[in-house]
Amino acid sequence: MADLLSRARAEALDAADPLAGFRDRFVVADPHLVYLDGNSLGRLPRATADRLRTATEQEWGGELIRGWSHWIELPRRVGDLIGTRLLGARPGEVLLSDSTTVNLYKLAAAALAARPGRRAIVTDDDNFPTDRYVLQGLAAERGAELRVVPTDRDEGLDPAAVRAALDRDVALVCLSHVAYRSGALADLPGITRLAHAAGALTLWDLSHAAGSVPVELAAAGADLAVGCTYKYLNAGPGAPAYLYVRADLAEALRQPIWGWFGQRDQFAMGGTYDPAPGIDRFGVGTPPVLGCYAVAEGAGLVAEAGIDRLRGKGMALTSYLVELADAWLAPLGFRLASPRAPERRGSHVSLHHPQAWQVCQALIDRDVIPDYRTPDRLRLGPAPLYTRFTDVHEALSRLRALVAAGDHKTYPAEPARVT
Amino acid sequence: MADLLSRARAEALDAADPLAGFRDRFVVADPHLVYLDGNSLGRLPRATADRLRTATEQEWGGELIRGWSHWIELPRRVGDLIGTRLLGARPGEVLLSDSTTVNLYKLAAAALAARPGRRAIVTDDDNFPTDRYVLQGLAAERGAELRVVPTDRDEGLDPAAVRAALDRDVALVCLSHVAYRSGALADLPGITRLAHAAGALTLWDLSHAAGSVPVELAAAGADLAVGCTYKYLNAGPGAPAYLYVRADLAEALRQPIWGWFGQRDQFAMGGTYDPAPGIDRFGVGTPPVLGCYAVAEGAGLVAEAGIDRLRGKGMALTSYLVELADAWLAPLGFRLASPRAPERRGSHVSLHHPQAWQVCQALIDRDVIPDYRTPDRLRLGPAPLYTRFTDVHEALSRLRALVAAGDHKTYPAEPARVT
Repeated sequence: MADLLSRARAEALDAADPLAGFRDRFVVADPHLVYLDGNSLGRLPRATADRLRTATEQEWGGELIRGWSHWIELPRRVGDLIGTRLLGARPGEVLLSDSTTVNLYKLAAAALAARPGRRAIVTDDDNFPTDRYVLQGLAAERGAELRVVPTDRDEGLDPAAVRAALDRDVALVCLSHVAYRSGALADLPGITRLAHAAGALTLWDLSHAAGSVPVELAAAGADLAVGCTYKYLNAGPGAPAYLYVRADLAEALRQPIWGWFGQRDQFAMGGTYDPAPGIDRFGVGTPPVLGCYAVAEGAGLVAEAGIDRLRGKGMALTSYLVELADAWLAPLGFRLASPRAPERRGSHVSLHHPQAWQVCQALIDRDVIPDYRTPDRLRLGPAPLYTRFTDVHEALSRLRALVAAGDHKTYPAEPARVT
Repeated sequence: MADLLSRARAEALDAADPLAGFRDRFVVADPHLVYLDGNSLGRLPRATADRLRTATEQEWGGELIRGWSHWIELPRRVGDLIGTRLLGARPGEVLLSDSTTVNLYKLAAAALAARPGRRAIVTDDDNFPTDRYVLQGLAAERGAELRVVPTDRDEGLDPAAVRAALDRDVALVCLSHVAYRSGALADLPGITRLAHAAGALTLWDLSHAAGSVPVELAAAGADLAVGCTYKYLNAGPGAPAYLYVRADLAEALRQPIWGWFGQRDQFAMGGTYDPAPGIDRFGVGTPPVLGCYAVAEGAGLVAEAGIDRLRGKGMALTSYLVELADAWLAPLGFRLASPRAPERRGSHVSLHHPQAWQVCQALIDRDVIPDYRTPDRLRLGPAPLYTRFTDVHEALSRLRALVAAGDHKTYPAEPARVT
């Protein structure tokens, strides 16, 4: 049997990987580059390059305005692909629309309006910045109280902390399913039950979860969710986001941005806003057609691979990464900043290092792409759809070598931050 | 001298057109098709097809996450291109962001918050539906009063009607510069002066104006504006919109959707929202990179042609269209539904016909693409950047022939509308 830390073992793991063939479905421009940031921006699928060319040149260029006869279905159709194949939602519960931030605003505002006697919102102190900012803005605007639950930045959110913040004044619990920094997985079904028991609605940010872990929105009875498509769904920088509203809740909700793409019988151009039935009322402005096609291709690849197989490989990859980090990097001052049990995290892990910023810069110069996350974390996301065990081995080998040699100490410290 | 209604005259006008060469900068997939809907969805510039391919394959595919080191400047850089070259704005006053509808919401809400003692919004009854819906939603949510000024649907908005609606309770006047149905041009400087005299802010929707008429925001002292990029700016279906905030006003305003792309020192991931200086505080979520590039190319072509030359050709094309319509179509039951004086309209005109829906369908079957607009209008937009006088001649020839033969009567009536 090969040495557990050897490259031969990584090669054996790759050889046994049922998803190995999917790497060829992506553009890999530089074979020497090890890309461990698919949790931030997924790679370009080959099919997407083709689809965007066709959509641009044949559809926009050739069909011109007539393209809208079928483009108009894209937000629903691609929403259903994501919803039914990746999020455990029913048809008609997911819509592509706007950015994650705008969708958070729409759904959080709708939730507050749906619980008029209540004025508190619960979130956690390690939620993604844009989620916290949106809630701060809504709280300021509407006189709501924002209750910020403390979180362990490495281990994630304890449901008991959420329970302690719940009472009859809470309208909404808004959390991330997978923590952006640590990768810690929040207990979506358990926290949804707690929120419902207190009469509150839940709004889940699935940005780091969709395509990396199975999400079972319908089974959990989740109320509302949003997420981006440019991470594990590989839809490209700034691709349109999605929103989920549980079917039986949709007609009871009104979102605050009343636009013509949320209007019943839109092209009647009627005088008074009358929200469309179902999920369509959560649309706002003209949807980005090219972006919708990119989501269709990227999310389609994830669906084809199958979220259960991706989850299996994601746990194996991060576990392998942790194993190498324990052996090679712990002696060099690194410490795991993510849950150790693979079932308690998504498909990325973080490592503490007191000079994480410099280490990150040095690693990029060695053609390994990680992410730096404040204040002292190196975030490594081996997206299971196209990352090999040999990529993880190679990345950690280069990382060990540079830190062992002290090369990172030659890099300047992180620039001063305003805040 | 050629007969004024002859094809030879159209050919002579094309031969004398200094902008004629720009047609070759666009994809023209079907030379038989006469496209008169560039005011709804502009044609595909050839350079855009190339740019999108490069941005997709080399930047996203090759640079991966590292692309953000320069992508992050796109909303400002392309905003400045539109602002300084097409809208008479200063650098740093225009940002690409979201959809027109979301931008209307952000800026209208910010304006209301900036005039706390006032609770009325003024708009007109022929404003574009999404504008009216957004204002209805804000009024409902914030207990504001929406004052809807009557407009002549053919001749446009009389500034006296706006003046009559103004008093010390008006926080915001929100209007379109070019009316979507008639093409009538509103008096932006004059109405801005009236609004300012009453202590109100102005929010202009420039969607049908940008790229078709000179817009002089700074000279008029305009406060706020929004617009889409998929009409005369040729950026493709659902391309990102822009917003304008007068520089000295930006820091005094807070928009309601607090997102990480509006945050000072965004990647510090700080705990509390602290809006970025200047126009950047009006950003929200991750901007759509491919869409931003498409705007850069499409708006760049408009800037290269020059808005004054485009305005001249736009007036000549619509005047020529009106001339042919008077001679050929008036006897067949058509009537001009736009201002007759070219300086009082943008680059599109509408024609009344009692069976406009059927006429529109018949015309499309004859490879002329107009727009139908409720309840009885055929809208014709000969975008000056790529439309020839011979296109107008050809379109009106086909239109005259089909209506003279009564062919439109064989088409079914418009489907029943919900509203």
